[in-house]
Amino acid sequence: MALIVQKYGGTSVGSPERIEHVAEKVLAARRAGHQVVVVVSAMSGETDRLLELARRIDPDPDPRELDVLLATGEQVTIALLSMALQRRGCPARSYTGAQVRILTDSAHTKARIRAIDEARVRRDLARGTVVVVAGFQGVDEEGHITTLGRGGSDTTAVALAAALGADECQIYTDVDGVYTTDPRIEPRARRLERITFEEMLEMASLGSKVLQIRAVEFAGKYNVPLRVLSTFQEGPGTLITYEDEEAPMEQPVISGIAFNRDEAMLKVVGVPDQPGVAARILGPVGEANIEVDMIIQNVAEDATADLTFTVHRRDFRSALGILERVARELGAREVKGDDRIVKVSLVGVGMRSHAGIAGTMFRALAREGINIRMISTSEIKISVVVDEKYLELAVRALHEAFGLDRPPEEARAQGSPEARKAAEPPRNALR
Amino acid sequence: MALIVQKYGGTSVGSPERIEHVAEKVLAARRAGHQVVVVVSAMSGETDRLLELARRIDPDPDPRELDVLLATGEQVTIALLSMALQRRGCPARSYTGAQVRILTDSAHTKARIRAIDEARVRRDLARGTVVVVAGFQGVDEEGHITTLGRGGSDTTAVALAAALGADECQIYTDVDGVYTTDPRIEPRARRLERITFEEMLEMASLGSKVLQIRAVEFAGKYNVPLRVLSTFQEGPGTLITYEDEEAPMEQPVISGIAFNRDEAMLKVVGVPDQPGVAARILGPVGEANIEVDMIIQNVAEDATADLTFTVHRRDFRSALGILERVARELGAREVKGDDRIVKVSLVGVGMRSHAGIAGTMFRALAREGINIRMISTSEIKISVVVDEKYLELAVRALHEAFGLDRPPEEARAQGSPEARKAAEPPRNALR
Repeated sequence: MALIVQKYGGTSVGSPERIEHVAEKVLAARRAGHQVVVVVSAMSGETDRLLELARRIDPDPDPRELDVLLATGEQVTIALLSMALQRRGCPARSYTGAQVRILTDSAHTKARIRAIDEARVRRDLARGTVVVVAGFQGVDEEGHITTLGRGGSDTTAVALAAALGADECQIYTDVDGVYTTDPRIEPRARRLERITFEEMLEMASLGSKVLQIRAVEFAGKYNVPLRVLSTFQEGPGTLITYEDEEAPMEQPVISGIAFNRDEAMLKVVGVPDQPGVAARILGPVGEANIEVDMIIQNVAEDATADLTFTVHRRDFRSALGILERVARELGAREVKGDDRIVKVSLVGVGMRSHAGIAGTMFRALAREGINIRMISTSEIKISVVVDEKYLELAVRALHEAFGLDRPPEEARAQGSPEARKAAEPPRNALR
Repeated sequence: MALIVQKYGGTSVGSPERIEHVAEKVLAARRAGHQVVVVVSAMSGETDRLLELARRIDPDPDPRELDVLLATGEQVTIALLSMALQRRGCPARSYTGAQVRILTDSAHTKARIRAIDEARVRRDLARGTVVVVAGFQGVDEEGHITTLGRGGSDTTAVALAAALGADECQIYTDVDGVYTTDPRIEPRARRLERITFEEMLEMASLGSKVLQIRAVEFAGKYNVPLRVLSTFQEGPGTLITYEDEEAPMEQPVISGIAFNRDEAMLKVVGVPDQPGVAARILGPVGEANIEVDMIIQNVAEDATADLTFTVHRRDFRSALGILERVARELGAREVKGDDRIVKVSLVGVGMRSHAGIAGTMFRALAREGINIRMISTSEIKISVVVDEKYLELAVRALHEAFGLDRPPEEARAQGSPEARKAAEPPRNALR
């Protein structure tokens, strides 16, 4: 007998019929002998409906009251799911975040979980009751209702699994696992049996929106085994594991290819090179609450420097305005910008111990005539910026070059000696 | 400066626009220097929407889970109203029933309030904050969410007013007060400035559904001054007072005319008269959970008795079935039934000290050729059962006969000496 925390998102509980389907899935786990805690989101569309009601009264409503409003969304779902379970003869009981008591800080609309009083949940489980908990919400020390922000239900599930010492935290979504890349772009994309937490973090932050990044971080911190699987399709999904649980030998070199369409690139050209130039350029950008992703600086022959960086596309215009002012102050030659670019990233824990990955990547792109505009690397990923029009071509070329459509064993055999000899790309100085 | 509890029902908060209108009314009370606690219901239609969701999953859902579901209705309203107040620069804070802490028993869907912890509300009021409380809901000793049943928001308001020692509890509805009778039947019906709690109880239970009867009882028990007034129209409404606050001389004889269309009449004829006959007939009716309203028994010359009583119209068929069985057992001559009858009642604290009211009533009905099928009286009301087709005619005739369209002074002067001499109607033996 295992203790399992299952989490179902808004689409999975989007109608009474879907809630009944979820009840059947919960029952199946219970019939298999497991104790089950279920965390649910608001029915799809409900949060938007509530936000629209609030917006009609105040476009910028008080965060405390917004939390009181939004918390009703999950409360509706927990009641309905408990009813569906009971109707099937399964003892079930619903709890709001405040009732469990999921204690958070007081940062309304983006609260962080501080502690979970799991005694009540344990008591119910010991009696054979399925416990249905409202995701996304908690309560602060003063008894005020808080929410964890959008997608916070994943975090609730992971935190409950950690507090209960659950054997597995299962996140049910509308995809049947984590793929080597987006199947809408590369139909030969393959579901991964396993992926490490670190890889998952890179995949999530790079735009593969299967799981909320905070939930993944949380699970890693508390060593909670996470599994992503589909509400609507049977299957084992993808297990998210700790690297050290796996022998490095079994690790495929590359796990997947992530991409991000939401970036824009900015470049300040010919800045007189002196200490603190990067800070003087990026300081005002940060002050304007614009997040910077990739950053590259290089020094030219004439002792002037070029600084290139990427921001979210919605911040492109305001970043450009700031740079033009800063460039004048610094005596820079020119400011350039391009918001028709994308970032494509190879992700894999295995690349740490393999030279030549970068070489294989650059050659595969060159073969398709794709010009690389920026390169950035970390321990487990290599990202390149290319023109937006090349996105699909780049993803497919890399998927092919690293044999991601084949099972790991086969793919590894294909890694050529030549590829291993290729030079590592230059490390990004500022990262 | 007074402390006022205001309660707004579902129609008053039925849309964001209406919630903003309510915010304006709250602000007006605050500008007049008052401390204000606002109790609100779910937006109109919301409770039915939630019930429909539940019904699609289970036609007979678990009461605990139903309460978790329905409690979201008011929670949405308190958040939206607080936002609307804050947007107008007025400090405001929402509380669910559990947050206040409105402690109830554990009778889900029909819980009764046991205690209110008003400390938090007082603290907020002292700081100049408007406190917005979810009506209809509470929490039991174990922390489970409970609801007080439909219309329970009135009870919440009265209970809060009692706990806080409020100067007035104002119930805002879609009518501008309590009328001498239903203006849809008698256009000359007049709004009453005052009505006693006892009269209000009779008016409410007889089908004038301005206030929930439980709330009126509650207000009477704790001496909370209640005022019924309109959300949509300016005006003083109707103040519900304690009889002893008023000198009896100022009391009009009759306050109003109530009626009830939901009744049906049953008669067992020619029962051999022996002790316990009424109990043997009404016992099985009560066991079938059928509530009996009026009851009359009389003994004929041949030492057989007739027993006549009324039930809710929906129970007519099943009551008839029970009576036919019982009548055979008792050797009764016949069972008769009529579900095309209505009850019309004169209500007035003043009638205690005035003879002749019944005579005036019966003559007014006789003048219109209306046959009286049953008569029943209490300290402050006289009810008659007449054929359904006479409802409007009877109400208008009585409204006219007691001068209810004119202010109290005028009406009293009109009471004829002849009317005062008329005999009292026979008292109902079983009441």
